[in-house]
Amino acid sequence: MTEFMNQDFLLSTPVARELYHQTAENMPIIDYHCHLDAREIAQNKTFRSITEVWLGGDHYKWRVMRAAGMPEACVTGDAPDREKFQAFAATMPQLIGSPIYHWSHLELRRAFGIQEILSPDTADSIYTQANRILQGCSARTFLEKFQVRALCTTDDPADSLRWHKQIAADPDITTKVLPAFRPDRAINLEKPGFAAYIRDTLGKAVGWELCSVEDVAAALVERIGYFAAQGCLCADHGMDACVFAQPDVNAANAAFRAAMDGRPLDSAQAAAYRTYLTAACAKRYTELDWVMQIHFGCLRNINGPMFRQSGPDMGGDAIRTDTGVDDLAALLNLFAEGSGLPKMIFYSLNPNDSAAVASIIGCFQGGGAGRLQLGSAWWFGDSRPGMRAQLTELASGGVLGQFVGMLTDSRSFLSYPRHEYFRRVLCELIGEWVESGQYPADWRQLNKLVADLSFHNTNRYFGFGV
Amino acid sequence: MTEFMNQDFLLSTPVARELYHQTAENMPIIDYHCHLDAREIAQNKTFRSITEVWLGGDHYKWRVMRAAGMPEACVTGDAPDREKFQAFAATMPQLIGSPIYHWSHLELRRAFGIQEILSPDTADSIYTQANRILQGCSARTFLEKFQVRALCTTDDPADSLRWHKQIAADPDITTKVLPAFRPDRAINLEKPGFAAYIRDTLGKAVGWELCSVEDVAAALVERIGYFAAQGCLCADHGMDACVFAQPDVNAANAAFRAAMDGRPLDSAQAAAYRTYLTAACAKRYTELDWVMQIHFGCLRNINGPMFRQSGPDMGGDAIRTDTGVDDLAALLNLFAEGSGLPKMIFYSLNPNDSAAVASIIGCFQGGGAGRLQLGSAWWFGDSRPGMRAQLTELASGGVLGQFVGMLTDSRSFLSYPRHEYFRRVLCELIGEWVESGQYPADWRQLNKLVADLSFHNTNRYFGFGV
Amino acid sequence: MTEFMNQDFLLSTPVARELYHQTAENMPIIDYHCHLDAREIAQNKTFRSITEVWLGGDHYKWRVMRAAGMPEACVTGDAPDREKFQAFAATMPQLIGSPIYHWSHLELRRAFGIQEILSPDTADSIYTQANRILQGCSARTFLEKFQVRALCTTDDPADSLRWHKQIAADPDITTKVLPAFRPDRAINLEKPGFAAYIRDTLGKAVGWELCSVEDVAAALVERIGYFAAQGCLCADHGMDACVFAQPDVNAANAAFRAAMDGRPLDSAQAAAYRTYLTAACAKRYTELDWVMQIHFGCLRNINGPMFRQSGPDMGGDAIRTDTGVDDLAALLNLFAEGSGLPKMIFYSLNPNDSAAVASIIGCFQGGGAGRLQLGSAWWFGDSRPGMRAQLTELASGGVLGQFVGMLTDSRSFLSYPRHEYFRRVLCELIGEWVESGQYPADWRQLNKLVADLSFHNTNRYFGFGV
Repeated sequence: MTEFMNQDFLLSTPVARELYHQTAENMPIIDYHCHLDAREIAQNKTFRSITEVWLGGDHYKWRVMRAAGMPEACVTGDAPDREKFQAFAATMPQLIGSPIYHWSHLELRRAFGIQEILSPDTADSIYTQANRILQGCSARTFLEKFQVRALCTTDDPADSLRWHKQIAADPDITTKVLPAFRPDRAINLEKPGFAAYIRDTLGKAVGWELCSVEDVAAALVERIGYFAAQGCLCADHGMDACVFAQPDVNAANAAFRAAMDGRPLDSAQAAAYRTYLTAACAKRYTELDWVMQIHFGCLRNINGPMFRQSGPDMGGDAIRTDTGVDDLAALLNLFAEGSGLPKMIFYSLNPNDSAAVASIIGCFQGGGAGRLQLGSAWWFGDSRPGMRAQLTELASGGVLGQFVGMLTDSRSFLSYPRHEYFRRVLCELIGEWVESGQYPADWRQLNKLVADLSFHNTNRYFGFGV
Repeated sequence: MTEFMNQDFLLSTPVARELYHQTAENMPIIDYHCHLDAREIAQNKTFRSITEVWLGGDHYKWRVMRAAGMPEACVTGDAPDREKFQAFAATMPQLIGSPIYHWSHLELRRAFGIQEILSPDTADSIYTQANRILQGCSARTFLEKFQVRALCTTDDPADSLRWHKQIAADPDITTKVLPAFRPDRAINLEKPGFAAYIRDTLGKAVGWELCSVEDVAAALVERIGYFAAQGCLCADHGMDACVFAQPDVNAANAAFRAAMDGRPLDSAQAAAYRTYLTAACAKRYTELDWVMQIHFGCLRNINGPMFRQSGPDMGGDAIRTDTGVDDLAALLNLFAEGSGLPKMIFYSLNPNDSAAVASIIGCFQGGGAGRLQLGSAWWFGDSRPGMRAQLTELASGGVLGQFVGMLTDSRSFLSYPRHEYFRRVLCELIGEWVESGQYPADWRQLNKLVADLSFHNTNRYFGFGV
Repeated sequence: MTEFMNQDFLLSTPVARELYHQTAENMPIIDYHCHLDAREIAQNKTFRSITEVWLGGDHYKWRVMRAAGMPEACVTGDAPDREKFQAFAATMPQLIGSPIYHWSHLELRRAFGIQEILSPDTADSIYTQANRILQGCSARTFLEKFQVRALCTTDDPADSLRWHKQIAADPDITTKVLPAFRPDRAINLEKPGFAAYIRDTLGKAVGWELCSVEDVAAALVERIGYFAAQGCLCADHGMDACVFAQPDVNAANAAFRAAMDGRPLDSAQAAAYRTYLTAACAKRYTELDWVMQIHFGCLRNINGPMFRQSGPDMGGDAIRTDTGVDDLAALLNLFAEGSGLPKMIFYSLNPNDSAAVASIIGCFQGGGAGRLQLGSAWWFGDSRPGMRAQLTELASGGVLGQFVGMLTDSRSFLSYPRHEYFRRVLCELIGEWVESGQYPADWRQLNKLVADLSFHNTNRYFGFGV
């Protein structure tokens, strides 16, 4: 029996152990998509307790705590920090087979040096230890400890990027912190608050009145330039389902006017609006050689009472089944017929989509190595089985050697061990292939693959230059 | 090489063997969803041959016999019992990799004590042995032999529960036999026979005329009370695809009147009717703290000639692809916005739905441990790979420690080894996790998990009190 | 560690090795669905270089070369043969986990006797060796070397079958080369060129004017007879998504007239047209005891610029998500209600469909062993994980012992090692089942199963008589 989560955790073969300890373990991190708050890095935030830094914004943990029967006061409510920590500790032993069980222990070990297993028996002792260690820590402590060479936050087009500028000007910050352009609020016209956003936020940011889809497109293009001037290398589009409509500026404007006036939307017109702007952005990304990420396949805020009481990102999002993957083919063709495809990464929240997305991507490759990417297993898929499935699908249906690898997608400074988890899963899988004679035991080539998939591919593909 | 189906069948690690033999093997059974006939228990039915008790109502076996080329006379026709048994024996060697191969041998071993491998060579000898043993057996023999502490049949709202009452009054019956409330015939208004059912069956059971959807809802609520008085703890709704429509009593009544008059149905109105009644039932279940099961994702009776000749449950049902999972989110939100969610278990016949259903459930957890459950792998999914997939998905996307576990869903008194099969698969999986360092080798905790998932969680969740 | 792709490649257990080397390895090949050109067999084509024979028509390889960053000139363009070969060699080391990595090495070994690993370092040496060996080879060399006893090409109904006749008359050709009837161009009325095809190709082949769907049906029936006279045993229908509409000859004719006149099509009428002809063909196949194959679930030619520049089959096809599987049930029922079901094999390009298709098939079995088949993993699914998934699904949801097994679906004379790959995967899986006690170690039965699934089932099912 292998000891619980020892140094060879998940490394089931000699090849896996060699590749992980020789190469993967030592590579620095580029976290090219996360939801960290640049202000907390700029101000080098400190934390009052492990509850704040570890449980404070983590809807993954909240969901399992609710399912395990913990009262909401101990989840997102006003119970004292120690009680919340105890509630999570009481949830842990039930999480056999969950990635959260592994992430949590990796985080305790790597961020705090705590080796104990978290359970009701150890909760108090760990709580006390962790808080003591936390006193010497701040946001940047973790970035340094985990060797985060670069990271991209997720930012609204209207953002002034004030904190990013401050970080860039601060010689003490060794991590390259870049914004990423996320124009969802300008594109998703059916969401509440759209008209106010266009008038009061985006319109104000560019300083002119936005009266048409062309105006909105021009505003986004201007803001892309603003982000580029701050070093931005990528954008991210969040779509509930894939979007496509035949180009039709009149339909797009009809939808825009209806949304601005608060009138009901025609769904075909709304699709025309979204497609128009998506294509306008893609054109500009292509010119700038940015990476365009597309996250799709979500049901957002499906629990109405929870959403009204607490807002988004409380654990009320789920996997969509009707994700519209076939429309992705049409969208890519629209780009191909027009101004060309930018570098793109596709993430569906529904794991059933992987094979189809990989196959669609394969129809539009060209013009450079790995230009279109099947994104890393995302969110609910970010488990050992989910990562293995994504890697296996990509290896079968694409070119694994070009993969840009892992990201945290996290709001927390403690999530970097997810990169470790990914690298262990990757080495485990490669180890299985090599040990069973499916790939030659060519160490130079294998170590190169692992280094590329851990770091170099990302660095090259995005152009981080770190 | 491991001997064929020996005592360590599927128990591939020392941990698996320890957990199974120490704990899982010894736990009694609660079979909370099956299709046994209460009358056969009340009357303690005996069987003329193994063909009757084993092949007589088992459309799983019929389907593979047809695919293996056996003539229908030997499947469901009028061939002699011995010939039918021989036909099944001739099918068996072709069933490599099929759960039916394993179930069948487990059943021969556990119910009859027959260790031989069933094949054409052994068919006659086994047929003779089994029939001899069967002479000392009856329905209740099997319930006792398999330690079935409690079971729930599946019953129409109009059922008098006469046999359940007789069982409850019979001190010789050691199994708690409860009805389960299945209002499909009142809800699925597009099915043939709906109008007659409403008028002559449900209307008669409550003793008043049902002239509207409100009347039908009131009738169902009354019958729920009647079932509750008989000890009922759960309901079960069978939906071909998930049902949801915005609440609209007028639309619901328009559909009801059309269906009663035999006029064509408007599909939006029909959805309003179904949603209205589903919500009305859910409200009452919540008040009574019942468990509401939802089975969905079926294509029913798709072989027209077979259905007209032989009726339902002959092997003419299949997995639906367009299962409407996204509507499940809307349905749960309707409950959340209204009178609250009952305890619920969701089973999709389409294995592709697991991740999405688990993620939707996670948005509505709260108010108690494991209130919403991703149901056990069902029907065509009830195989080793299917169970492993369901357990892995649940462990990754939920809280495995809260799972209520296995049921037979069977029409036969011989199907209880499916619980054994499930427990072996469960211990195999847990064993793999522990042996590879993914969960601590904490024996107290592991044995508790296995006992909970085999028996205690079910007992607590439903409130069987056995 | 197992040596890279040695004689026991994928044979992870003693049982697997025994079954493969004892039986599977020695069985001849029947390739019942491929895209070889009968003319090249008749004329016994020779090849100017390994680039021509190996990379010349292989869109699998082209797709990964593009994704690996090779310029189009080296993929399908006018770069010299040696450069193209080098570009593929440079792609190879990145293809860890890809079936193409395995196929390519199997092809080099079995067709050329080259044992080296293909990489940039070995590219030139292998290129030279292979071209030398190729000088003594021709199309038929490969058919003989791989023991191809029979193969079916894929042919348009209007084809004169001239080359098939010449092959049949040539006593030197030891492989039975039969046509397969593929009426897609007559059925897919929405595709460009439909009207011209009906008028100038199909109409001309039968010698009468085709003025209605009934006329087209009659023409197809006549051509089926013509193919049957040439020994044809099967047909193949390619559907983007499954097709079904209630029978309606008027709607079918409305669609036909619109398509012939170049007017826009009503989608319900188009479905009626396609269903009418599919059913008419199926009726005739049933009478002739042909096998009807249905390939569905594709997005075809989704990259517009690539398609306009280079035509189809360049690597611009992908997996469809909205495949309409539920309609398959309705289509089979239409046959069941009408003139009966022919022997049928179903292939969906979307691996998510396997469980549903297997379950639908199970509702219509009868009248002979294995009449309806879940087809071998197809195209993007034709990998070790894809084959394992298909075999596992079939074994769980059907009768594996009746499976008709593998085909190449290839345009190349070098693809026969895919049969070897399949047999290794099959023996690996059976070995796992037997070694873990899931199936008895009954050698006679196991060797029979492997021989059946490698060769005999196909020979019997189609009636090749080889």
